[in-house]
Amino acid sequence: MIVSSGIRKIASKDKMRIAGLMSGTSVDGVDVAVVDITKQKANLLAFDVFPYPNALRSEILRLCRPETALLDNICHYNFVLGEVFAKAIIKLCNKSRIPLDSIDLVGSHGQTIYHNPRGKRYGKTTIRSTLQIGEPSVIAHRTGITTVADFRPRDMAAGGEGAPLVPYADYILFGRNRSSRAIQNIGGIANVTFLPRFCKQDDIVAFDIGPGNMVIDGITRLISGNIRRFDSGGKMAAQGTVNKRLLNEMLRHPFLKRRPPKSTGREEFGISFANKIYKQAEEKGLADTDIVATVTAFTAKSIARAYSKFLPTIPDEIILCGGGSRNNTLVEMLRCELPDAKMCSTDDFGISVDAKEAVSFAILAWATIKGLTNNVPGVTGADWPVVMGKIIPA
Amino acid sequence: MIVSSGIRKIASKDKMRIAGLMSGTSVDGVDVAVVDITKQKANLLAFDVFPYPNALRSEILRLCRPETALLDNICHYNFVLGEVFAKAIIKLCNKSRIPLDSIDLVGSHGQTIYHNPRGKRYGKTTIRSTLQIGEPSVIAHRTGITTVADFRPRDMAAGGEGAPLVPYADYILFGRNRSSRAIQNIGGIANVTFLPRFCKQDDIVAFDIGPGNMVIDGITRLISGNIRRFDSGGKMAAQGTVNKRLLNEMLRHPFLKRRPPKSTGREEFGISFANKIYKQAEEKGLADTDIVATVTAFTAKSIARAYSKFLPTIPDEIILCGGGSRNNTLVEMLRCELPDAKMCSTDDFGISVDAKEAVSFAILAWATIKGLTNNVPGVTGADWPVVMGKIIPA
Repeated sequence: MIVSSGIRKIASKDKMRIAGLMSGTSVDGVDVAVVDITKQKANLLAFDVFPYPNALRSEILRLCRPETALLDNICHYNFVLGEVFAKAIIKLCNKSRIPLDSIDLVGSHGQTIYHNPRGKRYGKTTIRSTLQIGEPSVIAHRTGITTVADFRPRDMAAGGEGAPLVPYADYILFGRNRSSRAIQNIGGIANVTFLPRFCKQDDIVAFDIGPGNMVIDGITRLISGNIRRFDSGGKMAAQGTVNKRLLNEMLRHPFLKRRPPKSTGREEFGISFANKIYKQAEEKGLADTDIVATVTAFTAKSIARAYSKFLPTIPDEIILCGGGSRNNTLVEMLRCELPDAKMCSTDDFGISVDAKEAVSFAILAWATIKGLTNNVPGVTGADWPVVMGKIIPA
Repeated sequence: MIVSSGIRKIASKDKMRIAGLMSGTSVDGVDVAVVDITKQKANLLAFDVFPYPNALRSEILRLCRPETALLDNICHYNFVLGEVFAKAIIKLCNKSRIPLDSIDLVGSHGQTIYHNPRGKRYGKTTIRSTLQIGEPSVIAHRTGITTVADFRPRDMAAGGEGAPLVPYADYILFGRNRSSRAIQNIGGIANVTFLPRFCKQDDIVAFDIGPGNMVIDGITRLISGNIRRFDSGGKMAAQGTVNKRLLNEMLRHPFLKRRPPKSTGREEFGISFANKIYKQAEEKGLADTDIVATVTAFTAKSIARAYSKFLPTIPDEIILCGGGSRNNTLVEMLRCELPDAKMCSTDDFGISVDAKEAVSFAILAWATIKGLTNNVPGVTGADWPVVMGKIIPA
């Protein structure tokens, strides 16, 4: 009884060392975080991003579109990504002098190539479906570490949208506190997890707020002729003045008014939205820095308004993460909008703002192996709490 | 610690009740067997085949061809088949008055839509890949039963071909005996698992012999103008006379001479082979019954020759399974070819010849949850023994 006792042995540990892997929709590469989890507290030991080679990135992007995704390539790159993920873990361990065999568990989100949370009819039932690639059998075999992967399908089987998954990790990492907390991720999209004071799993509120860096990045690219990909540290925004008329026009976007649960992406705030704003700003004769300042304020205001509209209370603490938390101008604007909240970042809890997502999948795997339900039905829409993830014995 | 203790609880049971599911390359439907496994002996409680509706079958067949397989449909039907599999288990239990909650575990092979054991280059490495659909998260969720699925990827990660998987189950069910045994499956293809006396897992020999029923069925269809799909009970063959010249020509087929490990399928012994034989037989002026008798003898002779060429010894016992074991003429011919072997069928061990494949996946899941390595490296070509399967907690 090697495995069952293996799983039991891992599950019964007070301190578990877990490698969490995340590969996002931008298909840039795979984030790997190694954490020690003790008494529901995570201590980040190592983190790195392993960018995909350009050719691999192009191939994966082709797999994300039903028009160009071929069955043989889906299968091939499922196994290729398994190898890439395994190598990333091994590399990070070597670099950080963490013995590979000191890691108890891997938690891998995989690379989403298809996600249909609304579902499609089959007879009288609606069938939701999703597909993450990066074969976990390969990860388990190459690393020799028991691997948990493929979290979304179970929540969808339970009637949920299979997303978002991170709020559970936010709850484990930052919940059950005497203060109410918002974990404010500012990636391309800004999304929040609100944890009331002494909160239980049922009390979690989480939704997509609107654009995070997406519009700021888009405008910066347009202004710089694609030379600058983002406004580093918010320096350009700091030099400009917010144009209130343009800002107010942007704030009328219907997504911002919609009640949660809600989610958004490139469809609504991608390059065509940035183009539209840039054109309007030029018509108003705004300087480049003013445009950047205005879209930065747009993100800050969207967040503050969503808090007052859709959260039960303004949180006592706001814990920032994601690349946007390095944009000082944005953070300063947010501080002005929400003066009563204590503002900090996941850095202050020992988890770098970039590593937070990968750490979340270590937490999710930790829960799977412990047998703890790790979806949040109030957030995903699932009928009841379930244990997400498939366990691949080492 | 609900799950880990759940898995431990299942794994520690002396008697485990398992539902095994198999859906073969013919895409006819799903076989479900419920077995009690005690001390490595299986007792079949219930079995049934649940045919796919025609429309579903057509859709799945479209998924099996890279030219017609669309990403959104792959994902959709992965979840659809999960629902179909779960319903089949529930129906069988209701019909057989087996309480669903008395079942400890589900073992599901899934429906193969892609399998590339030779692999494809990625950089300097050869990447093998495979894909079985029938989402096990859906099975686990709908039935409330911990599910083991997706066996092939791990053997392929270990350098194996991910096939065949059944020899391990043959070993558990019929091995460790004072007699040497051949488990002779006669499906479309005839394949054998040879278990020497007191055999260990390393001693297992298994390979595809050549055609089982495939050529007999093909000829019967041609003769009857597609009215008869197979020679029921071998009645047509019994009325004919074997044509030795045609038989000897067929026995020159190069696949029969190749040394194991080897596997074959419709490519070599499908409808175009049957057409060729039918034409040759007509040229020789053979009566319809003589043609059927001759191709039946072809299967019997192929098996007997493979035994004397490729098995360490002629087995003491031959245990038949698969549809061909109901072809009395074929079985009689085999008896004449191998007079020294005791001939019986899995029926004599309480496992109906049709249920054997589904039972095998119950055995494989049993091993996964027990933590026992359940591939046979000598047969799949894997570098070492591994525990195949992904565990989805109930």
